[in-house]
Amino acid sequence: MNEIGIGMLGYAFMGKAHSKAFKEIAYLAWPPPLVPRLVGIAGRNAEAVGDAAARYGYEYAATDWREVVDDDRVGLFDNGGPNALHAEPTIAAAEAGKHVVCEKPLGRDAEESYEIWRRVAATGVKHMCAFNYRFVPAVRLARELIDAGELGEIRHFRGRYLQDWGDDAALDTWRFQPEEAGSGALGDLGAHVVDLARFLNGELASVSALVKTFLPGRRVDDAIEAAVEFENGSIGTIESSRLALGRRNAFQWEINGSKGSLAFDMERMNELQVFRADGDRARGFRNVLVTESNHPFIELWWPPGHIVGWGDTFVHELLHLLRAIVDDSDVAPHGATFEDGYRAAEVCDAIVRSGANGTRERLSYRTLTS
Amino acid sequence: MNEIGIGMLGYAFMGKAHSKAFKEIAYLAWPPPLVPRLVGIAGRNAEAVGDAAARYGYEYAATDWREVVDDDRVGLFDNGGPNALHAEPTIAAAEAGKHVVCEKPLGRDAEESYEIWRRVAATGVKHMCAFNYRFVPAVRLARELIDAGELGEIRHFRGRYLQDWGDDAALDTWRFQPEEAGSGALGDLGAHVVDLARFLNGELASVSALVKTFLPGRRVDDAIEAAVEFENGSIGTIESSRLALGRRNAFQWEINGSKGSLAFDMERMNELQVFRADGDRARGFRNVLVTESNHPFIELWWPPGHIVGWGDTFVHELLHLLRAIVDDSDVAPHGATFEDGYRAAEVCDAIVRSGANGTRERLSYRTLTS
Amino acid sequence: MNEIGIGMLGYAFMGKAHSKAFKEIAYLAWPPPLVPRLVGIAGRNAEAVGDAAARYGYEYAATDWREVVDDDRVGLFDNGGPNALHAEPTIAAAEAGKHVVCEKPLGRDAEESYEIWRRVAATGVKHMCAFNYRFVPAVRLARELIDAGELGEIRHFRGRYLQDWGDDAALDTWRFQPEEAGSGALGDLGAHVVDLARFLNGELASVSALVKTFLPGRRVDDAIEAAVEFENGSIGTIESSRLALGRRNAFQWEINGSKGSLAFDMERMNELQVFRADGDRARGFRNVLVTESNHPFIELWWPPGHIVGWGDTFVHELLHLLRAIVDDSDVAPHGATFEDGYRAAEVCDAIVRSGANGTRERLSYRTLTS
Amino acid sequence: MNEIGIGMLGYAFMGKAHSKAFKEIAYLAWPPPLVPRLVGIAGRNAEAVGDAAARYGYEYAATDWREVVDDDRVGLFDNGGPNALHAEPTIAAAEAGKHVVCEKPLGRDAEESYEIWRRVAATGVKHMCAFNYRFVPAVRLARELIDAGELGEIRHFRGRYLQDWGDDAALDTWRFQPEEAGSGALGDLGAHVVDLARFLNGELASVSALVKTFLPGRRVDDAIEAAVEFENGSIGTIESSRLALGRRNAFQWEINGSKGSLAFDMERMNELQVFRADGDRARGFRNVLVTESNHPFIELWWPPGHIVGWGDTFVHELLHLLRAIVDDSDVAPHGATFEDGYRAAEVCDAIVRSGANGTRERLSYRTLTS
Repeated sequence: MNEIGIGMLGYAFMGKAHSKAFKEIAYLAWPPPLVPRLVGIAGRNAEAVGDAAARYGYEYAATDWREVVDDDRVGLFDNGGPNALHAEPTIAAAEAGKHVVCEKPLGRDAEESYEIWRRVAATGVKHMCAFNYRFVPAVRLARELIDAGELGEIRHFRGRYLQDWGDDAALDTWRFQPEEAGSGALGDLGAHVVDLARFLNGELASVSALVKTFLPGRRVDDAIEAAVEFENGSIGTIESSRLALGRRNAFQWEINGSKGSLAFDMERMNELQVFRADGDRARGFRNVLVTESNHPFIELWWPPGHIVGWGDTFVHELLHLLRAIVDDSDVAPHGATFEDGYRAAEVCDAIVRSGANGTRERLSYRTLTS
Repeated sequence: MNEIGIGMLGYAFMGKAHSKAFKEIAYLAWPPPLVPRLVGIAGRNAEAVGDAAARYGYEYAATDWREVVDDDRVGLFDNGGPNALHAEPTIAAAEAGKHVVCEKPLGRDAEESYEIWRRVAATGVKHMCAFNYRFVPAVRLARELIDAGELGEIRHFRGRYLQDWGDDAALDTWRFQPEEAGSGALGDLGAHVVDLARFLNGELASVSALVKTFLPGRRVDDAIEAAVEFENGSIGTIESSRLALGRRNAFQWEINGSKGSLAFDMERMNELQVFRADGDRARGFRNVLVTESNHPFIELWWPPGHIVGWGDTFVHELLHLLRAIVDDSDVAPHGATFEDGYRAAEVCDAIVRSGANGTRERLSYRTLTS
Repeated sequence: MNEIGIGMLGYAFMGKAHSKAFKEIAYLAWPPPLVPRLVGIAGRNAEAVGDAAARYGYEYAATDWREVVDDDRVGLFDNGGPNALHAEPTIAAAEAGKHVVCEKPLGRDAEESYEIWRRVAATGVKHMCAFNYRFVPAVRLARELIDAGELGEIRHFRGRYLQDWGDDAALDTWRFQPEEAGSGALGDLGAHVVDLARFLNGELASVSALVKTFLPGRRVDDAIEAAVEFENGSIGTIESSRLALGRRNAFQWEINGSKGSLAFDMERMNELQVFRADGDRARGFRNVLVTESNHPFIELWWPPGHIVGWGDTFVHELLHLLRAIVDDSDVAPHGATFEDGYRAAEVCDAIVRSGANGTRERLSYRTLTS
Repeated sequence: MNEIGIGMLGYAFMGKAHSKAFKEIAYLAWPPPLVPRLVGIAGRNAEAVGDAAARYGYEYAATDWREVVDDDRVGLFDNGGPNALHAEPTIAAAEAGKHVVCEKPLGRDAEESYEIWRRVAATGVKHMCAFNYRFVPAVRLARELIDAGELGEIRHFRGRYLQDWGDDAALDTWRFQPEEAGSGALGDLGAHVVDLARFLNGELASVSALVKTFLPGRRVDDAIEAAVEFENGSIGTIESSRLALGRRNAFQWEINGSKGSLAFDMERMNELQVFRADGDRARGFRNVLVTESNHPFIELWWPPGHIVGWGDTFVHELLHLLRAIVDDSDVAPHGATFEDGYRAAEVCDAIVRSGANGTRERLSYRTLTS
């Protein structure tokens, strides 16, 4: 089996999630398309990155990401660093011929995101923006049901991503610094909603939004609310908040079509609610435990009824990328490309503009030649 | 015990719900503040209204509502007719000295609603707009918890009222005729969301909305979506649809504050989800079955654990009005007055304007002297 | 429309529930098969029964039930008194030619229940044992689905009725006096489980049970547990407790067959969980809101999505009896006859014997000629 | 960091689950108490076991388990083979000085289980019976709440483990061969219920049970039902079935005490329902998402709100064993020892006897010197 050398930037939350996934791919997907070899990991804190290298089995640690990017043994560069560190290392890695995966949001705004996409696309490497919720089995199943026409013509998409850990004025990580993060609940949570809205229901046409910071002294937004139109004519809402007490990871969405509806809550990520307007007297949403042998990704795991965890979505995601690399197949549509990362950023920017101006912002998207 | 003569307009859905409630008040509230005496019922179809009079025990049926309004034995006029018939009979009854209750929406738009309110308020009678969901025990309990400060400072209110019976192009009742109804899902369902938003979270400050008709040939809206701000600084969404397949009576709302959160779904109307940020290790939303002996309205009914039905909310509502009449107490804040009916209409009108203009519409409300 | 005179024994919990239902039948079922006329109500406390008569509109109150039983205007005698008062008045009423409905459990044991059945059956009047949960729309729908063969061959029935109000050693009503009640959680709650087990799954063949009193000084059982076999070969459990903290009215049952399964919880009595083994990739229990226009009893009430309450089951139950009276049709199988009351008592007695002896008790049922 | 050599028997379902866990322990628990080194894996099919060795990284594969047991580099022998292969290899490994973990049920009956326990205990090695559901975070949290006295005196434990994959007469793996498996749903699923019953509520005192095979030609039981008493005076039920259509992995239990209650469903294994009788007006079961930073095992994983999967329980379980080995601490009470495996087998045997005899079987347990 062929190996692919992995170079990682970041060793905290996403660094752990991605490293774990690379290690598991080698035996969960059997035989794996490529065996990930953990070559180097970069981070600013020498002690911490050294500890992470020992922990996850990287061959070396570096305090300068360029060391990893310049390493000939690295075939895939994985950027799990803070948002402000997405552009330069990712572009450099691609221009050095490495395939790249970058955490979301791609850039801190549409302009930066576009630039990352444009520069990376020009190199011809594979690129993926790590919107991992596309790789939740229930989300993929939803996509498959929609693609098969089971919902008919879509009328509504409603999505909200609610957490409550932001309710602490003392929080001061990079996620609360606009220079590092770009935005708050918008880019951290709202971008996920935008991405699944696009994944399940196609492009957004307009947003009418509010952006709000509640905690005194906080420099990024705490919550956003938007009424949205899609290009397919459906309407709905997109919301995110870090201050919805009692909601820990409540990424909830519902989609209603002319033939049926689907509903989901990330806190019960192994379940998909499915309604079909089939005239049955016993009508109602069925609660589908998405662990059947014919459900997405489940061949990697266990017999029916045995649920997967949040961390397991990264196995699905990175395996998808390795297959695209080895087969030279498209990351899209099931994976998010950098174009998807850019488009989500356009929607986020429009939310910010609408929040500031009080106007419905119509969306337009740049292409690579525009 | 003193009686109060009831004059009813309308004999269908609301006519049945209100008549049943008047009959039950006489023995569920014991002793009742006033014993409702069903005097007369009016409707356009002579045979149907005659049958309704026999069925519910009205002393006579009339095809002209003026007969009921002019009847000296009638002390309370209950308008359950189509929206276009709200203004004239209600105003006439009040000017004839009868207390009045009118189904929602009060008028077909803010202008008509204001006029109803202004004319009726000038007479000095008691007036109530029949937003019956204020009288769901779980909703009243929510209000009591909020009033007691248990949620702290409110940050979010999200409400949506989803049904699916509108997904039939052949439907052609008055609810689909703009002249009769004023609007579609907006006034029928959205007005309920607006009213509970105001009841639980105070006045709205702005709306950024979309209004949409999906079915070809339909002349009223099928759905609305809005991002909203409240005067207290909180933000959220208001939505309604008659085309959300699988949702039968899903009036769902959630409210998040700095100390806790509440959530509700009308399809499980006897339950209230309550979260408190109390530092408990076993944190989570508790599912409160709102049937305890110290819960609102339950003294009328059964021991704990025995749920009430949708129709029972009308008993709570009309009993509240009878008490206001006999005690000469205020219908507000627990009941909706015609001012509340008017204010909901202002919000609905703003949603229509925002939908048409693409702008955030700031709300202002007229007073009786403005 | 013809009237039927109602004579009631008992004015508290069941007296209220039944009286309310009789009054509503007159207009909810339209036209009603018979119009209930509330003739007389009996109870031991003169002041309380007089107040009840005024409240519900009975023409008179009596402190001796014989007055009601002897009243020629009474055509239906409704026994909502304590268990010890079931036998004599019910038999006397039947022998006086009145149709009879008696609260459950029919007698305090199988012997007494058999005697009530035998004596009443000999008179030829209609008799019904008020197992009202047969008249929950979701339970009737379950029965209809089972009768239609949708579950296939049944393998399991599990039922448990859990409450927690018994957790108070100071409680001292007739329900805690063995002379008055016969038993505790067994007859009060367990009998309901036994009845629905029989209604949905047929006769029981054996019980292997435990009977337990937890609270010091309590003279009736607090809880029972049983492993049970049915005549159709299926196996399962029957449980009841008044000490299951947090469960208020949790009558939960599940039935599994070779083609599908059903599940129910009385705390969400408007919902039925339905699973069908139809090979659908999106398999799962569907949550059916039992309020569709083609669902049982719903023609009495509201449009789809508007739930009924616990008290409304008595309307369904007593209307069923009135129809049996006017049509001279059988109360069974959808209503419980006194034979059903007797058979439930045989099962309860077997549970007591098994609890005492530690043996599996096989059931046999007497017939009227045995 | 010190290593411990792992020798594995079995490469299918449990072989995969355990091997994955050993590999993850090395970096999820950081620093790990011992670094698992995957030395050898044994299985009867040479090709399959060779493939498994390559897949999971064992240094060699063997078709004779004695090769692994005799390997000096192996410090921990993990028996994930069919039940009939539990005794001999496990005893041999222990007698060769290796610590041992053995899948449940420990033996095919109490006699065999006792013998395994007796022989292994005599060697002084650490031994664990792999009842992995003790290592579900919600189950451990339940145990901690009970140990802290939060439920008060326990009155009820009800547990049922329902699956439906057994509904296929063509199934013919070792799990359906009595010689290999010992029993069917009893040992496969019921033993888990018995173990958690003991873990949460202490020893069982008696069982009154039914054992049933539904499918023609099947040679093991399909389902069991039991009414049970515990030594602490509480009563309840234990059930398991492989034929409960719609239930995929529904290991559901509820425990009621004098101060509160807990409820759990393995299909939602990250949630624990907690009720406290604290006099709060807003009473109800709270739904605790067991992912808080102060919840059991979560320090290994992610921030609050990010759920773990079924497979992750093996990480918790085997890490617990490694700590016991390195610290020379007791496997019990949080891990199941071979004594626990034996005691569960005594209960299972009593269920079989009760099913055959129709008597309440009182339990007695042998000790090592008895």
